[in-house]
Amino acid sequence: MQRHFDQELQELKSTLIKMGSLAEQSIEKAIQSLLLQDKELALLVINDDFRINNFEIEIDTAIVDLLALQQPVASDLRFILAAAKINSDLERIGDHAVNIAQSSLKLSEQTSFSPSTWETLPLGDELRRITHITKQMLTDAINSFIHLDAMLGENVLLVDDVVDSLNKQIISDLINVMKNNSQFIDQSLELIRVSRNLERVADLATNIAEDVVFITKAKNVKHHATDISDGEKKMNIEK
Amino acid sequence: MQRHFDQELQELKSTLIKMGSLAEQSIEKAIQSLLLQDKELALLVINDDFRINNFEIEIDTAIVDLLALQQPVASDLRFILAAAKINSDLERIGDHAVNIAQSSLKLSEQTSFSPSTWETLPLGDELRRITHITKQMLTDAINSFIHLDAMLGENVLLVDDVVDSLNKQIISDLINVMKNNSQFIDQSLELIRVSRNLERVADLATNIAEDVVFITKAKNVKHHATDISDGEKKMNIEK
Repeated sequence: MQRHFDQELQELKSTLIKMGSLAEQSIEKAIQSLLLQDKELALLVINDDFRINNFEIEIDTAIVDLLALQQPVASDLRFILAAAKINSDLERIGDHAVNIAQSSLKLSEQTSFSPSTWETLPLGDELRRITHITKQMLTDAINSFIHLDAMLGENVLLVDDVVDSLNKQIISDLINVMKNNSQFIDQSLELIRVSRNLERVADLATNIAEDVVFITKAKNVKHHATDISDGEKKMNIEK
Repeated sequence: MQRHFDQELQELKSTLIKMGSLAEQSIEKAIQSLLLQDKELALLVINDDFRINNFEIEIDTAIVDLLALQQPVASDLRFILAAAKINSDLERIGDHAVNIAQSSLKLSEQTSFSPSTWETLPLGDELRRITHITKQMLTDAINSFIHLDAMLGENVLLVDDVVDSLNKQIISDLINVMKNNSQFIDQSLELIRVSRNLERVADLATNIAEDVVFITKAKNVKHHATDISDGEKKMNIEK
């Protein structure tokens, strides 16, 4: 029974890793479609979203199975509960990739916007920077889950504020662009949408990292909660 | 043991209902602060968010307890898993209330915006309508959970498309406002943000309603999945 259980737990983890890799690729492709103004890549992201959604349903069902039939305790239970949250976070990351791909398509409909436009945009560097940091946060969050590496997870938490302030700066710059030149309103709005979606992806990467810390340290770091591991020890659910 | 378990389950439900009522009030207050341009009400929403966050941590901890110590099966397990999701949905609804309250504050900083502005806005009616429908969806979703009323839950699912298309209409109207008059750019952007946040609240109300359908009918209606109750029966987790 225990061996069977370990195997199912391993399968759950490997399905989540596959889903994480798919979500990461979708974000990567959505961003590339934006930077290169590549419509086909954007359409690929939009059409592939059902695969991420299918993973979500598959993982939800596996979790119900595991909890109902195996009645896990201690660190296994903690792992399964975190897996349920990571599952829904990854599904939402897929949705944000779709949003970015949609913005990319809308930008490509505008004759005045081409890959070289990025070079001329005053905030091209900031947009590239928020893109780069968010992608790295997501990769690190997923890797921290794969290797149950709490230290890597904690590093992710530290970077979230940088993305928040970059996002604010980009929005404020784009508002100025719109005020100075009303013909850039549509484009600026799409870029604001992209920036906000990236900021949400960074938030979700942060959630995943928090869950990894929860799995490995039995500590709820959400909303800067105090360490609850003492309470859990009292409940004797530590292995 | 069973009696003790039923009591804990009842407590979990009543804590979730309290949290739901708080989230509903926050959305209501945020919207009122916007329509009446009432700064104090907006600040109240922002300052009260920690109470919703505390509920989230309390409920998460109760769920870990219930699963670890009681090892529930069948419909109880389904209820607890849905409670975990509703918990995170309500917390996010609280965040959207804060976003709306922040937009309300930013609008009130602008001398040209007052409660009577709503009457002169060409899209005042649409904004009132999306506000009204979203509030009703949230109330129905929470009531469907309180009474485990699947039919009420299914009604919520039907309205989501209306909010989506209203949101699109409002954004497109506001883009026209910005293009025709650059002095309304800041206000229009805040109103777009409000509309998007309301649309997200409607999505989250939809999630809650889906979870109620899942609890009562053992059917996963997410992403229009096919009925999985057959699979669950096979697993023999029906009571």
